Amino acid sequence: MNTNDLIPTIASLQDPALAARLQQRIDQKTKPLGALGRLETLMLRLGLILGSETPQLREPQMMVFAGDHGLAARGVSAYPSDVTWQMVENFLAGGAAVSVLARQHGLALTVVDCGVRHDFGQRPEPAAGAPRLLSRKLGPGTADAAEGPAMSAAQCEQALRQGRELLAALPGNVVMLGEMGIGNTSAASLLLAWLSRRPVAECTGRGTGLDEAGVARKVAVLEHVLARHADVDTPLQALAALGGFEVATLVGVVLQAALERRVVVVDGFITTAAVMVACALAPQVRQACVFAHQSGEQGHALMLAQLQARPLLDLGLRLGEGSGAALAWPLLQSACRILAEMASFESAGVSQA
Amino acid sequence: MNTNDLIPTIASLQDPALAARLQQRIDQKTKPLGALGRLETLMLRLGLILGSETPQLREPQMMVFAGDHGLAARGVSAYPSDVTWQMVENFLAGGAAVSVLARQHGLALTVVDCGVRHDFGQRPEPAAGAPRLLSRKLGPGTADAAEGPAMSAAQCEQALRQGRELLAALPGNVVMLGEMGIGNTSAASLLLAWLSRRPVAECTGRGTGLDEAGVARKVAVLEHVLARHADVDTPLQALAALGGFEVATLVGVVLQAALERRVVVVDGFITTAAVMVACALAPQVRQACVFAHQSGEQGHALMLAQLQARPLLDLGLRLGEGSGAALAWPLLQSACRILAEMASFESAGVSQA
Repeated sequence: MNTNDLIPTIASLQDPALAARLQQRIDQKTKPLGALGRLETLMLRLGLILGSETPQLREPQMMVFAGDHGLAARGVSAYPSDVTWQMVENFLAGGAAVSVLARQHGLALTVVDCGVRHDFGQRPEPAAGAPRLLSRKLGPGTADAAEGPAMSAAQCEQALRQGRELLAALPGNVVMLGEMGIGNTSAASLLLAWLSRRPVAECTGRGTGLDEAGVARKVAVLEHVLARHADVDTPLQALAALGGFEVATLVGVVLQAALERRVVVVDGFITTAAVMVACALAPQVRQACVFAHQSGEQGHALMLAQLQARPLLDLGLRLGEGSGAALAWPLLQSACRILAEMASFESAGVSQA
Repeated sequence: MNTNDLIPTIASLQDPALAARLQQRIDQKTKPLGALGRLETLMLRLGLILGSETPQLREPQMMVFAGDHGLAARGVSAYPSDVTWQMVENFLAGGAAVSVLARQHGLALTVVDCGVRHDFGQRPEPAAGAPRLLSRKLGPGTADAAEGPAMSAAQCEQALRQGRELLAALPGNVVMLGEMGIGNTSAASLLLAWLSRRPVAECTGRGTGLDEAGVARKVAVLEHVLARHADVDTPLQALAALGGFEVATLVGVVLQAALERRVVVVDGFITTAAVMVACALAPQVRQACVFAHQSGEQGHALMLAQLQARPLLDLGLRLGEGSGAALAWPLLQSACRILAEMASFESAGVSQA
């Protein structure tokens, strides 16, 4: 697979005729014009992605991509790297926030080991409906980005390819993005700084809970990393130099989902970083995305502004895992149900303004 | 029932010991401290209302209170009064936004005719789970508040009493507030202006979709109404002079719900006006309230600021009906499930920071 094969050509989802029919359908519902606010924008978006005036969401897939980060050894996180594999076990056992929320909403939960520094061994086939673990290990965590690229170009391409293949094998027409990886807010901050040409300090936050001194240390490490990779000059090189295995796999997932016109429900800081990279590689990706929430992590607001995205929720979440995507899921269902089921002024015999 | 019987004495829900146990439970979950943001605040609130570390929401009741307004004849709304009864029929037939959302989330839907200018006649018993209509008519719409009080003191007391009795007869421990009434943003604006001592122009918005000239006419009418009732000097008198039958009934519902320690899920501009009146009568009511969303209607932000409330959603909705309450409902369920089901660091064997 050369780069042309790796990065698909994604058609525009713009369809003025369908958009007009959707808008007319929304405006004829028994409500004042525009009274459902941003839920109406969501209806339009879902209709355009799925190519229907009455889009139907089928078999939503919650995917949590996990990986470890060489940079974590430099104290950029409040937690030790072992928490990555421990949380993977927690996802699978049903005890993590995303496990609880996936159960609540009937979302199929798949955890993908993209490069956790741990041997999960052979697992029995999970019961129907239980979370499952897939191994797509690219290494035992990335290399230390302060010393060289986090991953090789070959690993990065392999991650994209694996992400695309994983997505292509999934059922349904909605993928919800989640991640786990101690140190991965650092990777996301680095990618944001590189892609937006902003000072890394503006792009860096408390992650899992650093204090002020911890953030200052983190910023110093990330400044060093960026300086070390001053020669990087394409988004794909930036992804390899600064990213993580789970982030690179996510980029492949997003590219393939947009190619297949699936709805991509974006979670927080790390998954949005992957979307930014995917948009840099193939700008049409943006149109397939629904942004679930604005994270409490500093830097996420900058990402959303750059993507011209206003997310559905703003609850100050900063957990990752896909928890914000799962919390926003019922709003997507509501949007589709309202399009399909709500009466029009004419059908309900209600007088107009 | 004298006023003492009418306005119950509501005990404080403050319970520092329970609050501490709830906070500890939240902090031991497998997530960084505070990482679930305002969902954690919601967990605390629900725990304190229901008096449990693992609150369980039972049989949520979506109640839509409908009434007509004498003021509507003065052109304060973009829609004719007939839309009130037409929308009641739409709620019952399952075609309105709140009908669709109640069906989505399994919320029992009851529409209460508090004083719609229409004879709904005798209805067959609805099928199990279908929306039902209750008649608690206080009149064929309120009187024109520009000429005298919207309702008599006796009608207002009767509305409160009926609201309390309605709530007391409901199953479950959650009530979700909705309303319908052409002209009722005017009543809500008037109550906000009276209770907050703000100029009515600040409190008045586009309602169902007035243009700028329409809003100016509405403000002029409302200024006249307020001047006409300059002698009003208690919240109960203000409710009778300026309110609506559905608003006064809502006040009774909110008082009784807080007395019984049920969760009150507040919708938009009109239901928040009722909550403001209830809080003026019995301040402890505030503690039983969960604010679902910030409405796009001008004035709602002022109400929320006065109540020191930050709602869960901010989607620019301005539909009423309880639609915002219904959209927020899954977040309440998520909060309870996370409290009950999410693992602790200890139980999951995850390392701490």
